[in-house]
Amino acid sequence: MKHIKELLVDLYGCKGNLDDAEFLIDVLKTAAQRMQSKVIRPVHHKFSPTGTTVILILAETHIAIHTWPEHRYAALDVFVCSEEVDPQVGWNAVKQALKPSSFVLHELTRKIE
Amino acid sequence: MKHIKELLVDLYGCKGNLDDAEFLIDVLKTAAQRMQSKVIRPVHHKFSPTGTTVILILAETHIAIHTWPEHRYAALDVFVCSEEVDPQVGWNAVKQALKPSSFVLHELTRKIE
Repeated sequence: MKHIKELLVDLYGCKGNLDDAEFLIDVLKTAAQRMQSKVIRPVHHKFSPTGTTVILILAETHIAIHTWPEHRYAALDVFVCSEEVDPQVGWNAVKQALKPSSFVLHELTRKIE
Repeated sequence: MKHIKELLVDLYGCKGNLDDAEFLIDVLKTAAQRMQSKVIRPVHHKFSPTGTTVILILAETHIAIHTWPEHRYAALDVFVCSEEVDPQVGWNAVKQALKPSSFVLHELTRKIE
């Protein structure tokens, strides 16, 4: 049986620039790199007037971030299906870059059988 | 305060073809349509020898599915940030198409403040 670990984090009061797609892609790529996870493809979309979605497709599923810069809020999903990849390491990299004043963390383990 | 609803579903014993990316894109597009949610962009990746990832970027965040056809298993995330969009409706459309013999559903509400 294989386990999938998923971390879902609400980030409040972010100090990093939540409307800069290039910056957010770099943040998620750094997170993937720290987890030693292979990035297959980054995709992003900028909403009008504000708000950005960045998703990295990984060899071990995905990392996604959706931002609401007007609330300094971001919703992060780190979803990995390898026993060797620790989503906590990816989340730490994002936390370091976006500097939230507070956050709420949900952890989920899913089973492939 | 705005709420984000996220449904995370483990689908076991799927009868739908989990290795057909075009089919899975259609399934997720139907789910988005039933939720009356606007699709910004579909992205997909086929793994070798088997396994498919499909993600639809929505105006209201995303729907993602990752499949392990060898286990007839799929992991579905339906993540929406609009009060008018019901992720349950999207999940019902996916359930109808993939016909799992069983499933485990996790529901999460996230707050943007």
